[in-house]
Amino acid sequence: MTYCVGMKLDDGLVLMSDTRTNSGVDNISVFRKMFTWQVPGERIITLMTAGNLATTQAVISQLEERTKAPDERDNILLQTPTMFQVATEIGNLMRDIISGRQDANGAKGRGRFTASIIVAGQIKGMEPRLFMVYPEGNFIEASHDTPFFQIGETKYGRPIIIRGYDSAMSLEDAAKLTMVSFDSTLKANLSVGLPLDLQVIKRDTYEASHEHRITHEDPYFQAISSSWGDALKNAFHSLPDYSFYHPKD
Amino acid sequence: MTYCVGMKLDDGLVLMSDTRTNSGVDNISVFRKMFTWQVPGERIITLMTAGNLATTQAVISQLEERTKAPDERDNILLQTPTMFQVATEIGNLMRDIISGRQDANGAKGRGRFTASIIVAGQIKGMEPRLFMVYPEGNFIEASHDTPFFQIGETKYGRPIIIRGYDSAMSLEDAAKLTMVSFDSTLKANLSVGLPLDLQVIKRDTYEASHEHRITHEDPYFQAISSSWGDALKNAFHSLPDYSFYHPKD
Repeated sequence: MTYCVGMKLDDGLVLMSDTRTNSGVDNISVFRKMFTWQVPGERIITLMTAGNLATTQAVISQLEERTKAPDERDNILLQTPTMFQVATEIGNLMRDIISGRQDANGAKGRGRFTASIIVAGQIKGMEPRLFMVYPEGNFIEASHDTPFFQIGETKYGRPIIIRGYDSAMSLEDAAKLTMVSFDSTLKANLSVGLPLDLQVIKRDTYEASHEHRITHEDPYFQAISSSWGDALKNAFHSLPDYSFYHPKD
Repeated sequence: MTYCVGMKLDDGLVLMSDTRTNSGVDNISVFRKMFTWQVPGERIITLMTAGNLATTQAVISQLEERTKAPDERDNILLQTPTMFQVATEIGNLMRDIISGRQDANGAKGRGRFTASIIVAGQIKGMEPRLFMVYPEGNFIEASHDTPFFQIGETKYGRPIIIRGYDSAMSLEDAAKLTMVSFDSTLKANLSVGLPLDLQVIKRDTYEASHEHRITHEDPYFQAISSSWGDALKNAFHSLPDYSFYHPKD
């Protein structure tokens, strides 16, 4: 499994992904799921991937080969004029890779090679944008009503984001909120694991304003994880008490 | 979908279930999923059901027919000597019903008629017990390490129970904790819906010490639901702040 969150805020974008991949519980590995390409001062584009690792690596490899050889015909990420087109190109690439695998494996391949990708970034002269690309190649964009996307193991960490998110919150607070959401998920699902990758893209900087890999030894994440339990208990006790004799049955 | 929680505490048992059933999002109904049989002063046994409604209704109907006709040969719930045997009988009944449906529907039936049941109760002279019965008819019992069971849509409401549960907490607090867990689930999954059924079984009373149906108009549940958002925000802000310049990258 995997857990990735992308959040759009007034001040920019906050992105976080875990690094655990597993094929059964006895075969786990660490793979980075966050990939960034930038032209300083002009654009930054970050992808976070969930799903079949061979599929997502194929997508990233094809994109990277293209970015590494600037004289080739398609340099999608660095030359595409808009984030919308970036999402379109990534969707097409992923759809082709998945359908190629499925065709080669016949009926057995249905659904086995699927993946999802969160695409985030900003290109100069335009707004920061956040997309979720589906295995079929189509995609949706974050809006005022749905300002964040999750992929992978989304449920454990969702209630706190729903309750805590505010588009006007600082990027620091959004990073903190994302860590709390990851902490709840890590506590519940073994297939989501440390280290975590955090990236913050401040609006109109066209670069990664902050990048941080959170390991087991990270003192801030340890503090969040241990104090969140107490904070939740205090929050719980601050609620009105229930009485068996109060409600009219 | 469904959401049911059964918790075992030092002072007794707290049980809560929703009432929504759906076949697609355009076909929803209210069905009670909590069923109780008791012999005052001697035993109380409560079931909560998740999964295929025809299957769980068949289980309940067969049990009820037996309890309604005391001269029939099997009066499982009121005469079985131990809670362990109650769980065994319910498991066998469910397995037979499911396999009958599956056989009649061939390959198409695999997995379609499954259900799970939480069995809770106490029989005089013995401890309160809490079981989870699987569609295959086998079951597990709650222990010191795993003192609560959830069935149905379990993920959204799990982190708060993991963080808030304490076997020494009062039954009132356990009821409150269960409501918070349901509130998180209701906010995230449309297939879990009000009204909710709450039952509290105080140890060594052999009766439902408290029963309450929580509707949309319930003032206490409304208070919990609205103040939990604020309480969570306060808890979040009580955590140490994150700084982009503090951690060593």
